[in-house]
Amino acid sequence: MTTTDLHVYDTTLRDGAQQEGLNLSVADKLVIARHLDELGVGFIEGGWPGANPKDTEFFHRAQHELDLCSATLAAFGATRRAGSRAADDPLVRALLVSGAPVVTLVAKSHVRHVEEALRTTREENLAMIRDTVSFLHAEGRRVFLDAEHFFDGYAADRAYALEAVRVAAEAGAEVIALCDTNGGMLPPQVQDVVADVLTSTSARLGIHCHNDTGCAVANSLAAVEAGATHVQGTVNGYGERTGNADILTVVSNLQLKAGRPVVDPERLRDATRLAHAISEVTNVAPYSRQPYVGASAFAHKAGLHASALKVDPNLYQHTDPTAVGNGMRTLVSDMAGRASIQLKAAEIGIDLTDLPNRDELVASVLAEVKDLELRGYTFDAADASFELMLRNAVSGTRLAYFDVESWRVITDARGGELAVSEATVKLVASDRRFVATGEGNGPVNALDHALRQALSEVYPEIEKLELIDFRVRILDASHGTDAVTRVLIETSDGETSWNTVGVAANIVEASWKALVDGITFGLRRHEVPVR
Amino acid sequence: MTTTDLHVYDTTLRDGAQQEGLNLSVADKLVIARHLDELGVGFIEGGWPGANPKDTEFFHRAQHELDLCSATLAAFGATRRAGSRAADDPLVRALLVSGAPVVTLVAKSHVRHVEEALRTTREENLAMIRDTVSFLHAEGRRVFLDAEHFFDGYAADRAYALEAVRVAAEAGAEVIALCDTNGGMLPPQVQDVVADVLTSTSARLGIHCHNDTGCAVANSLAAVEAGATHVQGTVNGYGERTGNADILTVVSNLQLKAGRPVVDPERLRDATRLAHAISEVTNVAPYSRQPYVGASAFAHKAGLHASALKVDPNLYQHTDPTAVGNGMRTLVSDMAGRASIQLKAAEIGIDLTDLPNRDELVASVLAEVKDLELRGYTFDAADASFELMLRNAVSGTRLAYFDVESWRVITDARGGELAVSEATVKLVASDRRFVATGEGNGPVNALDHALRQALSEVYPEIEKLELIDFRVRILDASHGTDAVTRVLIETSDGETSWNTVGVAANIVEASWKALVDGITFGLRRHEVPVR
Repeated sequence: MTTTDLHVYDTTLRDGAQQEGLNLSVADKLVIARHLDELGVGFIEGGWPGANPKDTEFFHRAQHELDLCSATLAAFGATRRAGSRAADDPLVRALLVSGAPVVTLVAKSHVRHVEEALRTTREENLAMIRDTVSFLHAEGRRVFLDAEHFFDGYAADRAYALEAVRVAAEAGAEVIALCDTNGGMLPPQVQDVVADVLTSTSARLGIHCHNDTGCAVANSLAAVEAGATHVQGTVNGYGERTGNADILTVVSNLQLKAGRPVVDPERLRDATRLAHAISEVTNVAPYSRQPYVGASAFAHKAGLHASALKVDPNLYQHTDPTAVGNGMRTLVSDMAGRASIQLKAAEIGIDLTDLPNRDELVASVLAEVKDLELRGYTFDAADASFELMLRNAVSGTRLAYFDVESWRVITDARGGELAVSEATVKLVASDRRFVATGEGNGPVNALDHALRQALSEVYPEIEKLELIDFRVRILDASHGTDAVTRVLIETSDGETSWNTVGVAANIVEASWKALVDGITFGLRRHEVPVR
Repeated sequence: MTTTDLHVYDTTLRDGAQQEGLNLSVADKLVIARHLDELGVGFIEGGWPGANPKDTEFFHRAQHELDLCSATLAAFGATRRAGSRAADDPLVRALLVSGAPVVTLVAKSHVRHVEEALRTTREENLAMIRDTVSFLHAEGRRVFLDAEHFFDGYAADRAYALEAVRVAAEAGAEVIALCDTNGGMLPPQVQDVVADVLTSTSARLGIHCHNDTGCAVANSLAAVEAGATHVQGTVNGYGERTGNADILTVVSNLQLKAGRPVVDPERLRDATRLAHAISEVTNVAPYSRQPYVGASAFAHKAGLHASALKVDPNLYQHTDPTAVGNGMRTLVSDMAGRASIQLKAAEIGIDLTDLPNRDELVASVLAEVKDLELRGYTFDAADASFELMLRNAVSGTRLAYFDVESWRVITDARGGELAVSEATVKLVASDRRFVATGEGNGPVNALDHALRQALSEVYPEIEKLELIDFRVRILDASHGTDAVTRVLIETSDGETSWNTVGVAANIVEASWKALVDGITFGLRRHEVPVR
C-alpha cells in the first residue's frame, strides 16, 4: 500500500516486455505480478488485452488466480479507431472484458504523429480521446491516459498538446501521464513542461520516461518535483532501446532521498531480492552496477577507503544498504590494505581479532594477494579463491581433498569436423590412486568431467557441484606468446555459487587451477571431511 | 580537441579501474589512452603513480610510447601527509616524476572525513592542500583538485567545504572538481551547491559524479547548467559500486541536446566503435541498453511503429544515431545493412559499384554476416575475417593456401609442474602432404608453431607473420558447458596488424579458425600466390 498520495505505476509487463530478447509467458507474467505486489507498487499494468492472445489470457487468468494484496491491475489499450464509435471498437471492448479496474489508454498528443502516423485530423484525434475516455468512464472504469510523445508534441505545438490533456481530463480521465516516448528529454525540460501543464489542468499528472539520454530516473524525479503525482517505470529498467525508468531506483530515490515515502519501508527491504527474483523469471542477467539493488552497488574496492570503512561505514555509503535489502561488501585487490583483509575475513565469518599472530598473518596474506595480483590474479572477482587462501593461512596447512599426480587433455579435429576434447586425470584420494577419463566440447569441460569421475567414489558429494560459468582473459597480451591467461570459474551447488581464479601461461593449466579451487571450496562449504 | 571551453576529463584509467572485476595491465591502459585521445577528450587521468607499481610504469611508458594527438595526460595523487613537507613526500614527488603536465590532487573537504578518516585537524588539512598545490604549481605543473566528498561535506559544514575550495584556488589550483564521492546526490542539490560555490571562487569548477542514485549523468549536466566547466567521467560508466558518470552519455547529451559542443562532431561519430573497442580491452561485456552507443540504443521492436517508421524515422528516434556512430535497427533495416556492407567494401578497397551481380552479392554477404553474428561472430573487431569473406564472395571461390587434414593438441602436466602443450597438424599444400609438430606454452601457441612449421617449406613468407594478440570471450555463459567461445586473434607482419575471429563450442577449435584466417589474410596481403 502506498503511504502517500503518489502513484507508483509499474509497466514491466507491458512496456518492459518490449525489451530486445525479453519474452514473457503468461505464467511468467503472473509470477512477476505477485513480486510487484509484494514490493508495494500501486498499479500493475498487465498488458494489452485484445491486441495479442497472451495478454488476453493473462487478464483472464489474473481474475481467477491473482490475489493481489495491495496493487491494482491496469489494462493498456488505445483510443478507438478513427471514424468509429468507442462502444463498437473490439479493442476497446476487450479492455472491459479484461476485468481490470483501471484502463490506461494510449493517445496521441503530437500533431505530426496524428497527421503522419495515425493519418487522421487533429479534431478526430481529440474526438477519439473524448469518446473512448468517456465510454470507459461511464462503464465504471478508472481511466488513465498515456499521452504518447507528449514532450516532443509540446515542443512541436504546445496548444494542441495541452488541448489533448484538457479533453481527456474533461471526459473523465483521472490521470494524464506525460510520456517521453523517444526518451530524448533532459530534466530541466521535463520540469518546465510538467509545471506548465499543471497550470492548465486539474487532472493528476503522471510521468513516463525512457532512458535514451541516461536520465530516465532524473527526469521522473524532475516531474515529481514539478508536481506530477503518478510515476511510471519498470523493474530493472527493462524496456525498448535503452529501457524505461527503473522503478526500483525511482522509488528508492523518492523514499530515501527526496523525503517522499511511497512504499512501506519493510517492503522496500525486499527490493534487492525481488529485483533478482524477477531477473530469474525474465532470464535477463542482472546488471551488477544497477543502483541500490545491484550486486556491486555497495561493493568497495579501494584500500584508501577500507581503513576508514572500519571507523564508520556511513562515511562511505550514500544510504544504508539494508534499507533496500542489499549489503556492503569489501573487495580484495592489490589496492587493498590490511584493513580490507580484516574486513573481508569478518565478512566470511573468520574472526581474526583473538589470533595471537594476527598482524603477521594479515601482513603475509596481504603480501600474497599483492604478489599474486601482480602475476595476474584478481581476487575481487574470485571470493572463493581468496577465502581458501585465507583459511589456509589461518590453519597453517593447505586444504587438499586429493593429490594430483598428472592430467592430460587431447583436443583434435579431422578436416572440417567438430573438434572433440578428451581428458585424463590421475590423482590420489583417501590413499587410493584413481585414473579417470572424460570427454567434453572443450578442454576445460573434458577436465571437469574427468576430475569428477576420479573423485566420485571417495567424494560422492561432488555430484551437487556444477561448473556454471567460465571466463578467460589474456593479460598483457602485447607479448603474444608470453601472455599470461587468467581464468575465472563459477561453481554452483544449486543453492549458491562461488568464483575461483587460476592464472598460468597455459590456458588449460589456468583453468585446471580454478577448477580445483572451485571443487575444493564446494566440498569445504558442505563440510565434507578430507578422506 | 575540445571545441568549447568546457573540459572533458576522463578518469577511466584511474577511477574506472576501481570497478569490480576490472583489472587493467599497463598495455591495456596504453591502448585505452589512445582510444580516448581518438575520441577527443581533453584530459586523460592515467592513474596514481607511486601508489602502485603498475601506475608508475604506465606513466613511465606513456612518456616514451604514448603520442597523444590532442589530450593532456593527468596524474592522480593525494595531498601531502599530515605533519610533513610536500617536497619531502615520496608520493608527491612521484607525481613530478610521472612527467604528466597535469596533476590532480584528491583532498578532503568534509570535516568528518578530515577528523575521522584522515585523523588530523581541520587546519592541518587546509595546510596540506595549500602546501601541496603550491609546491606542484611552483614546479610548473597545472594543478587540479578533486574535492572528495564535497557535497556531503557541504551539507555537514558549508563554511569548511568552501574554505577548502578557497585555499586550493589561492594556492594555484586551476580547477576544483566537486566530487559526489558516495554518489548519493540528486540533480537539484548538485545544481544549488555548484551555484553557491561559484559565487565564492574564481577557480574553474568541475564535477565528478557516481551513479548510486542512477543520476550520475543528470547530476553532471545539472552542474554544467549551474556553471561548472569541467566534467569528469569514465567510458561506459566504469567505476566502483554503480560506476561513474558515463562520459560518452554526458558528452553526447551536452553536444546533441544541450547545445554545448565539446568534441569535434567527426570524433563523436566514433563513439560507438570506441566504446566497444574499449570493452574488448577491459573484457567487460558491453551493456546493450547503454544510452547512445548500446547495441539496443536505437533498436526498435517493430509492432506499433513499423509502418510509421517508414514514413519518418525521426518521429521515433530522439537523435540521429549516426551522430554517435550507431545505427537504427528494425526488422526492415535491410537497407541500412546493405549500405554498410557497401561502405565497408569501399573502405577495404573493393569497389562493388560496377559488379553486374552487385545487389545479389551484397544481399548474400549480408545474410552470411547476420547468420554468423547470430552464432557469436563479431566483425566489428575482426575486419580481416570480414574482408576474407567478402573477397571470397566477390571471387566466387574460397581462398585456401592449404587444405587441413587434421590437427591435434595435447596439454599435460605432472603434479605441480608447468603444463606443456604439443600440437600436430596434418595438411596438404602445393599437392604435398605435411605433418608437423610444435610445442608451446598453451594449445593455441602450440598449434601456431605446428602450422608454421607445416607451411614453411611451401610458403616461406609465413616467417614474417607473428601472432601478437589472442582474446577469448565466452558467450551466453549462463549455460556453462553449453557456452560458445569467441576467439579474436591479432596477427602482425611487423608493419601492420589485422584481426580475425573464430567461434566454436570448443575453445581450441575457435582459436584454430581464427589462426587459419590470420595466416591466410597475411599471405594474401603480401600477394603470395596459392602454390
